[in-house]
Amino acid sequence: MSEELGITTKKSEDFSKWYDEVCQKAELSDLRYNVKGFIVFRPWATMIMNLMYELLEKELQRKNHFPALFPAVIPKSNFHLESEHVEGFTPEVFWITEHGNGEKLEEKLALRPTSETAMYKMYSIWIRSWRDLPLKIYQRCQVWRYEGKATRPFIRSREFHWIEAHDVFVTKEQAINQVKEDMIISENTLHKEYGVPFIFFQRPEHDKFAGAVHTYAADSLLPDGKVLQQPSTHLLGQNFAKPFNVKFVDKDGKEKYGWQTCYGPCVSRMLASIISLHGDDKGLILPPRIAPIQIIIIPILNDKKAEILKKCKEVEKELEEGSFRVKIDEREEYTPGWKFNHWELKGVPIRVEIGPKDIKNEQVILVRRDNNEKVAVREINLTEKVKVTLEEIQQKLIKKADKFFEEYLFEAKTMDELSKIIKKKGGLVKVNWCGKIECADYIKDETEGGDIRGVRFDKEEKPNDKCIYCKKDANLVVYVGKSY
Amino acid sequence: MSEELGITTKKSEDFSKWYDEVCQKAELSDLRYNVKGFIVFRPWATMIMNLMYELLEKELQRKNHFPALFPAVIPKSNFHLESEHVEGFTPEVFWITEHGNGEKLEEKLALRPTSETAMYKMYSIWIRSWRDLPLKIYQRCQVWRYEGKATRPFIRSREFHWIEAHDVFVTKEQAINQVKEDMIISENTLHKEYGVPFIFFQRPEHDKFAGAVHTYAADSLLPDGKVLQQPSTHLLGQNFAKPFNVKFVDKDGKEKYGWQTCYGPCVSRMLASIISLHGDDKGLILPPRIAPIQIIIIPILNDKKAEILKKCKEVEKELEEGSFRVKIDEREEYTPGWKFNHWELKGVPIRVEIGPKDIKNEQVILVRRDNNEKVAVREINLTEKVKVTLEEIQQKLIKKADKFFEEYLFEAKTMDELSKIIKKKGGLVKVNWCGKIECADYIKDETEGGDIRGVRFDKEEKPNDKCIYCKKDANLVVYVGKSY
Repeated sequence: MSEELGITTKKSEDFSKWYDEVCQKAELSDLRYNVKGFIVFRPWATMIMNLMYELLEKELQRKNHFPALFPAVIPKSNFHLESEHVEGFTPEVFWITEHGNGEKLEEKLALRPTSETAMYKMYSIWIRSWRDLPLKIYQRCQVWRYEGKATRPFIRSREFHWIEAHDVFVTKEQAINQVKEDMIISENTLHKEYGVPFIFFQRPEHDKFAGAVHTYAADSLLPDGKVLQQPSTHLLGQNFAKPFNVKFVDKDGKEKYGWQTCYGPCVSRMLASIISLHGDDKGLILPPRIAPIQIIIIPILNDKKAEILKKCKEVEKELEEGSFRVKIDEREEYTPGWKFNHWELKGVPIRVEIGPKDIKNEQVILVRRDNNEKVAVREINLTEKVKVTLEEIQQKLIKKADKFFEEYLFEAKTMDELSKIIKKKGGLVKVNWCGKIECADYIKDETEGGDIRGVRFDKEEKPNDKCIYCKKDANLVVYVGKSY
Repeated sequence: MSEELGITTKKSEDFSKWYDEVCQKAELSDLRYNVKGFIVFRPWATMIMNLMYELLEKELQRKNHFPALFPAVIPKSNFHLESEHVEGFTPEVFWITEHGNGEKLEEKLALRPTSETAMYKMYSIWIRSWRDLPLKIYQRCQVWRYEGKATRPFIRSREFHWIEAHDVFVTKEQAINQVKEDMIISENTLHKEYGVPFIFFQRPEHDKFAGAVHTYAADSLLPDGKVLQQPSTHLLGQNFAKPFNVKFVDKDGKEKYGWQTCYGPCVSRMLASIISLHGDDKGLILPPRIAPIQIIIIPILNDKKAEILKKCKEVEKELEEGSFRVKIDEREEYTPGWKFNHWELKGVPIRVEIGPKDIKNEQVILVRRDNNEKVAVREINLTEKVKVTLEEIQQKLIKKADKFFEEYLFEAKTMDELSKIIKKKGGLVKVNWCGKIECADYIKDETEGGDIRGVRFDKEEKPNDKCIYCKKDANLVVYVGKSY
């Protein structure tokens, strides 16, 4: 673990290679586990993800969700209850069929690819009356999907870490409001805390979650202009309530089926956006809210070693009392220069250097990771300066990511224009569409992979021209993008 | 979910039935999921477990452990590298053999029953030099074991939630010190935070973890006098390092195998002890440190509804600012009396009642869950009173549990005495033992299930008599107990 070299690839020259290098050298993930498609989440990534989980769970709880834990295994018979769901997910399921020395199980068990068919079995037992609704439960867990596509750390692997929230309501309207609330939860976490901008699209019919009435998915963009899907929220209607028998007695004494939604923010995948959007040629840059270490203190030692270390400890204590996440790197086997590079690679927002001169001047040197700005700060002002600086970094990272995102929103009137943008730049391109799947297929062919991501949910947009492909009447304004 | 009745079984009359009733009626767990051996962890239990995890992870991190996340699946070839381990665990493994529509996997995958054979594969890659050591990594995860014994919520199920810490050291001595540190971690969490007393025993040879040199396990007691094993820590020596090739180059330039330990505190099982030890005939009693709600505020409404609710909110805000976990139960469909019972059943440490008289007198009524003590508290003193009371409850619960534990430590000189104690009372009974497995087997037969739990780790005890069974020379003082 001790060997380490700086990032050798420039982000602007080869994003994909840069990304892999950051994941490896900042010790975020390891692809060398000997099962295809499975990655190891190393400590630095795990600590970041734990902070992401904490913020996300707090927000879900503020919105009246409760945590629970359901079994990771789903009997085949549950899995088969909703026909579209089973059809959509079966190709991706890992099946447990044996135990011990090869004894067969009575019934095959799916390792959950998602938990509708585990949770709703219990919901049908728990829910009796309108008084039990709304029922809003989430679980923090792993899911497993036998993916065909290439493994990329955090972006795609056969095991990932997410939260899934599954809610039941008395009315359809309440369920629709939940979908909107899920979008607000995404805004309050993914955008405001993690600094990742996105747009929620209502996915076209052919690209819905298996079993949903409507799927709304947040599309974010990576620096290469490709789309990375982030949280999606699904209006399930009564599609699952009926086969799973999720019923309640309403105020009027009548038995009715519940209206359901589910929401799946994938913490490991959100980390992919964080790494990609904020990082630079030196490595990671972490938004302060999710930085496991917000301030790293580096002693610049000379003959006054004891005095300098004492000062470092005082500063650490003061910052800890201010509720910052702070650490001193007092390892003797490494030079200050090596440590600067190391913690820059890891994306720690602020570095504090303390050397002999600083002690004399009752100051410390504060260096910002995001813009390399280096200032001397009077000791007496340190806590306040750190507080302000962390918030500045947080906001600056969001703003920069927003600006990038906006610059990648395009509009095209002709297939030529569209193809050129998708092939050369990427991004999300606004077009008029007739709604026919054939046109979607042709668009994908001609643009070499541009998918119709759907209709914007945050604002109404009306067609102002014919379908970009068939030139017949358009009834939808949609966005095309090439996705991971 | 709305139906609810108080606990109908007295804890002192039928502990086992009382336990199941509390788990069900306090909405902790549900056994009705349709896969044998799998339970659902309902919101209240999950929230408690999340607080338990938080305290445990903080303590592990204070002791220089880092979190990581390893795959849940282990290829058969890894699993087979350590011969005792594979022999011990194979009977309990769930095997993944297929994906999709029944396509066979190239290699069978074990659903992890424990993670040595997943993690050490990576350790052998990561560790190169003495500089990489000690390596101290834990993961918070689920494990799965195909258990034959009956499912009991939190006590035993085929899926459970734990932490496993896996450490590698340069020397054997460092590894032995880690074993001792793991015991301190257990003391600081299980005992001091969760209020569960225990003794660490060095398990006899025939009862070691599969692959360990020595196993040290914490035995706790349930109110029926039966032993429930809690965290165990294992000195693995170089048993895994050799087959997994966990090697490093030492300061002297020579290649050496690492010395390893692993430690497994099972959060879901620790909850079983918490429920059992602290609860009473009204339901759960939660130690304040792990109570998801520490103070429940119940408005006693009459015509001054608005005024009373306003006061409740003020009190809630004040207590929140004091960093307490507090909630108002303002549901209108339930009476105050119903709410008293409900939150007593859930084990919330303090109830605050606010009615019209209290507003007039600028006071609130504070009721303790542990002893039903009811006092009027001047509003101005509330935060301080709550702080002191929560700490009093915390300490009182620990003290009470300690007293119970001490009362169940016995000593026996003859098999008659031993059998009588084990059959009538349970507990942990000190005896002299020759160390032969045959005697252990006879003891188990004659006491109808009394196991030799091992030699106390916390103090040295020397035999003062012959072996309790064979009457030959004894070389060990051990404790016998009947376990879950």
